[in-house]
Amino acid sequence: MAPRCDGLSDAAMKDLMAQAEKLPISTVVFVVALQAEALPLVDKLELIQDDKPPFPIGMPWIRFYGTYRDLFINVVCPGKDSTLGVDNVGTIPASLVTCASIQGIRPDLIINAGTAGGFKAKGASVGDVFIASSVAFHDRRIPVPVFDLYGVGTRKAFTTPNLVKELSLKVGNLSTGDSMDMSPQDEELIIANDATVKDMEGAAVAHVADLFKVPTIFIKAVTDIVDGEKPTSEEYLQNLPAVTAKLTQSVSQVLDFISGKCLSDL
Amino acid sequence: MAPRCDGLSDAAMKDLMAQAEKLPISTVVFVVALQAEALPLVDKLELIQDDKPPFPIGMPWIRFYGTYRDLFINVVCPGKDSTLGVDNVGTIPASLVTCASIQGIRPDLIINAGTAGGFKAKGASVGDVFIASSVAFHDRRIPVPVFDLYGVGTRKAFTTPNLVKELSLKVGNLSTGDSMDMSPQDEELIIANDATVKDMEGAAVAHVADLFKVPTIFIKAVTDIVDGEKPTSEEYLQNLPAVTAKLTQSVSQVLDFISGKCLSDL
Repeated sequence: MAPRCDGLSDAAMKDLMAQAEKLPISTVVFVVALQAEALPLVDKLELIQDDKPPFPIGMPWIRFYGTYRDLFINVVCPGKDSTLGVDNVGTIPASLVTCASIQGIRPDLIINAGTAGGFKAKGASVGDVFIASSVAFHDRRIPVPVFDLYGVGTRKAFTTPNLVKELSLKVGNLSTGDSMDMSPQDEELIIANDATVKDMEGAAVAHVADLFKVPTIFIKAVTDIVDGEKPTSEEYLQNLPAVTAKLTQSVSQVLDFISGKCLSDL
Repeated sequence: MAPRCDGLSDAAMKDLMAQAEKLPISTVVFVVALQAEALPLVDKLELIQDDKPPFPIGMPWIRFYGTYRDLFINVVCPGKDSTLGVDNVGTIPASLVTCASIQGIRPDLIINAGTAGGFKAKGASVGDVFIASSVAFHDRRIPVPVFDLYGVGTRKAFTTPNLVKELSLKVGNLSTGDSMDMSPQDEELIIANDATVKDMEGAAVAHVADLFKVPTIFIKAVTDIVDGEKPTSEEYLQNLPAVTAKLTQSVSQVLDFISGKCLSDL
């Protein structure tokens, strides 16, 4: 679903969206924070890097593209920090690259794919791949009426009951924050969000996709157990290669399932 | 300084920027999170609301514009959450509207103006108006080498020694986070950032302005004392009208000073 065309009424827009739900999905944008997460997918799908991506000139954001079966696939990454050389992780770069990608690529579907921390108390294990049923923030505490709800920013993901059933994927709520660790205040809100997985981008991607009314799904592979014994960053780095391979495998299964289907079939 | 034109080398870009620093400032974009903060300024400068702002259709972002002396003034706000009706405060909407404004308005100078919490231990009092010397985040904790520095994301503001001297403004470091309250973890990083004022947008505006190389200054008026006796949200709401009036007065003095000058005169 492309951003709203100028001059369309809300009713006409709804109509268009209902029609689009019955057309086969054509253009998919993957928003992936880390290039280490994106590259195995890029290799597997034989995508090529766009040397003139549809982004403002000079931005660090990266786009890989190509076709897979009948799908036009795009993998976008927020790229590297120009001074420090590390990936632009977190909510701000994810929201900016999602916004630019919606405007420049006009996807039918966004898939935010990446690694996440999991909570064993909610049934997560390292290597599990989850589809998020809802996303919310856990580090935007604004104790003023209504602003408190805005801060948490809970949004339902696009529902994909057939996809989940067919691929036997686990389903859980995703909670997003800009820190890799978890403070007691974060933990309190993660519990309030009833989250099984925790990442650093999902709810930001959802915020932007919601502004443009683009259906979005979230596929998160668990690299570390937040409520476990090992320190998150150590466990994360240790498991990243194997879990990224698992994520890539799940994502290709998702694409095989999506291919030829319309949104309402998912 | 507009975003880089296609095909320019780094050297040519530097040249252009050096030339621009010697031309009178023409287009100014104010990024203001709350409409309650923006409207007194909009009234004072007799700006009008743009009913076709240079943003993607359907976005909640708002632009007011007009001329003041020889300056083309724009005040942009991230607008309201379409479901909850409250202002889109915080880093994600601020970064999105800054990005869209740079592309759509091509300012010579960005001014992020708004209210902030102040630390009395660092010399701040309610009603003080600060110019930030640097900005950083206090809620992006990533305990992995180099990513830790990326998370804090310290950036120098555009330096304005003559402006600060002429208007006798206070100067201090600004620290940004998406929460209105302050957790012990936030406090630790705010102290590490040596911050005198704390807001919810500044470092996000700086991140985007830095990507596009647009000089940015930060004018923050203190509504509440974070290390004081009163709860932040209560003190904030109580002081908002009077402090916003003070902010508006300072901003017009800043515009009077800027008018007719080039960036290197500030």
